[in-house]
This record gives sequence, structure tokens and C-alpha cells, in this order.
Amino acid sequence: MTRGFFIAVEGVDGSGKSGVVRGLVAALTARALPVRATREPGGTPEGEQLRALLLSGGGEGWAPRAELLLMTAARVQHVERIVRPAVAAGEILVSDRYVGSTIAYQGAGRGMDEGLIRDLHATMCDDLWPDLTLVLDVDAATGLSRSRRRLAADALDEGRFEALDLAFHERIRASFRAQAAAAPARHIVIDASGAPDDVQAAAIGAVADFLQRSVDHGS
Amino acid sequence: MTRGFFIAVEGVDGSGKSGVVRGLVAALTARALPVRATREPGGTPEGEQLRALLLSGGGEGWAPRAELLLMTAARVQHVERIVRPAVAAGEILVSDRYVGSTIAYQGAGRGMDEGLIRDLHATMCDDLWPDLTLVLDVDAATGLSRSRRRLAADALDEGRFEALDLAFHERIRASFRAQAAAAPARHIVIDASGAPDDVQAAAIGAVADFLQRSVDHGS
Repeated sequence: MTRGFFIAVEGVDGSGKSGVVRGLVAALTARALPVRATREPGGTPEGEQLRALLLSGGGEGWAPRAELLLMTAARVQHVERIVRPAVAAGEILVSDRYVGSTIAYQGAGRGMDEGLIRDLHATMCDDLWPDLTLVLDVDAATGLSRSRRRLAADALDEGRFEALDLAFHERIRASFRAQAAAAPARHIVIDASGAPDDVQAAAIGAVADFLQRSVDHGS
Repeated sequence: MTRGFFIAVEGVDGSGKSGVVRGLVAALTARALPVRATREPGGTPEGEQLRALLLSGGGEGWAPRAELLLMTAARVQHVERIVRPAVAAGEILVSDRYVGSTIAYQGAGRGMDEGLIRDLHATMCDDLWPDLTLVLDVDAATGLSRSRRRLAADALDEGRFEALDLAFHERIRASFRAQAAAAPARHIVIDASGAPDDVQAAAIGAVADFLQRSVDHGS
């Protein structure tokens, strides 16, 4: 393998993204493949500082356009410093969220113009899209109730978005499904309503198939 | 006065911007005008956090496009939370730097496309320009030597840009002069090579004239 792959894992809160990322890294590592996990916003020292700033809330919080710019700034840093070098070095990079989340959350969720978000991605990130995006699909109510359990259990509150209502989460889910439908060649929708082990197994199977197909096509 | 005014003070490092901002606030306050100072990047709690992030450096630092996005994010927050409300409330808001600095530093200085910066400003800040921009004009060598003295005296190091070379500062100065020449109705270039008191007096005179003209025209 001369060039690596960039794989994004997307989905509503509580869809099991972090478990799937861990499962993929374990499974690909077990096959002796050079795999690495990363996440957005974050993935770089600078991006992690921005992530903290975005999630800290407080005061009136960020204006929607400012939030979009911060998400994109973290992504620029991530793409230039991590994604491109990793893929160029032949690695398989698995990212917990990417631009699909910005389209879903800032676009469908907060009502920003999706064209504006896509234009910004084109200009600032050279329109770099993942080779494959896994969309973990679960109904918004299930996702929300899982998120709430996790937040209560972990006493963590990275759940800025979780505070918003069910209708918001339903728009997010619909956006991810629409993104997948609009570019089926580079998306796989995975039913994420089942047990975590089943969702991880489905994700691992889908990625293994994708890698096999890519090798077969001489990618 | 029903609507206020938004005044930006721009110039190379060491051109005396902060002294001019202080002098303007003192002079207008003495005339019982509702004046307030602000600055970029910053001016809001969120923007000041970004300012710290931008100026902290460390690591490989921000990629140029990420830096542009962060500057613009701080500006969005500043425009929406401070500039528009202040001007709508009839205040005179005096800002130490605004988008002219982004055009000069990220554009002319770091070589980013000026059209891209202006487009981003149009999209994200609704193309809001100051009613008046004072450009404090001083040759780059004088500005740099003043900055170095100040940094040594204050043991402060907000001087990320000062670390760069004279040619860089000459491009910044040329950009500010070009911006003023391209939109003369809303720029005044002030010779900032003299003593601070003289520069402040010239700035105060220019702003007083501008306000008088605005009142005469029923603004």
C-alpha cells in the first residue's frame, strides 16, 4: 500500500462513534495494518485547545458563524498537520467526526447555509473528503438517551449539543443520511441501534470490505 | 446623535495605535461624547481567549488558513456582540485593529489571497467596514525599533509578528497605505513618525473633523 486511507466516523451523539473508532483501530492493528485514531474538533495540539474553547461554553457563547469558523480552523490544522501526512505515509487514519458533522450540526442543526459550509471547506481544506465515511445511524431518541446515560455515568459534560432538543437531533440524523445518499460511493450507513459489539462488528466488516475493494482496484 | 460611529485604528507594530486609542477616548470623553475602546483580536470574552491562543505560539503554530479563520471568528464575535450594539446605541467605538490588519498581515504579510480575506469578511461579518479608519503611517524600520524597545521595557511578548523581518513589515505598511488609497472616503492616513503627543493630537484632530462633517451632513 503506497497511499493510505482517510476514514471518518460520523453520527448523532450516542450513536457509538468512539467505540467504533476503538474497534476499528484494534481490528486493523490485529491485521498488522498501520492504523491511527484521531478526532475533530481536535486531533492537533492547537485543535485540542480550540475543542476546549468550543466546549467550555460560558457567557453568551459563540455566535453561530464564529463557531463554524472555529470548527473549520481546527479542521485546517488537522488536515494539514495530521490527515495529509498520515495518508501520504500510507497510514489508515480513522477520525471521530469530520466535515460531515459540521454540515449536520452547524448546517441542519443550527440552520446555517449548507452551501456556505461546503464552500468554506472547499476554500480552506482544499475540499478534502474522506475516502470512506461510516454513518452510524440510530434514531435520535435512542442516541439522546444513550448520551444522557453516558454523561451521567462519566460526570463529563462535553455535551453542549446534547442539551438541545429532540427535533435538533432528528435534523442531525436526517442530514447524515442525506449526505450518505448524495455521495453513496464514499459513504456506508451502518445500523447503530443494536448492541455496541454488533455495531463495531458491522463497522469492521464494512471497512475490511472497503479496503479489500480498494486493493482489488489497485488503489 | 441617533447612530454612533465605528472607528478603527490601524498601522504597523510600533506605529502608536494603543496611545492613539487612549488619546481618542480621553479627548472624546472630555467632550462628553459616549466613547469606548475595544481591540482585535479580542474585544469579547471569547475573542480574548482566541487572542491568547493566537499569540501563545508554541508547537508548530497555526497554519496560515487556520490563523485567518481564527482572526475572522474573533471578528464575528466582536462585530455581533460589541460593534453593532454599540453603534446602534449611539456610541463611538474605537477599535485597536480591525479587518484592515487581517488584509495587511495575513494577506500582504503572509501571502494569503486578499480576495479570499475580503470574501470571508463579506460572508462572515456582513461586509461591515468602519465609518472611519485611521492609518498610522510610519516606516517599517522606525516601527520595528519602537516595538523592540517596548517589548524589552515591558517584558511582554505579544510580539509574534515583530519576530519577522523588515521586508515583512514593509509589506504591511504598503498594504495599509494601499487600502487607504483605494477607499479614501473612509480612511485618513496620519504621519506617525513624530512624537507620540503629536501623533495623538493629529489623530484627535482628524476624528473631531470627521465627527463634525458627519454632524453637518446629518449623519
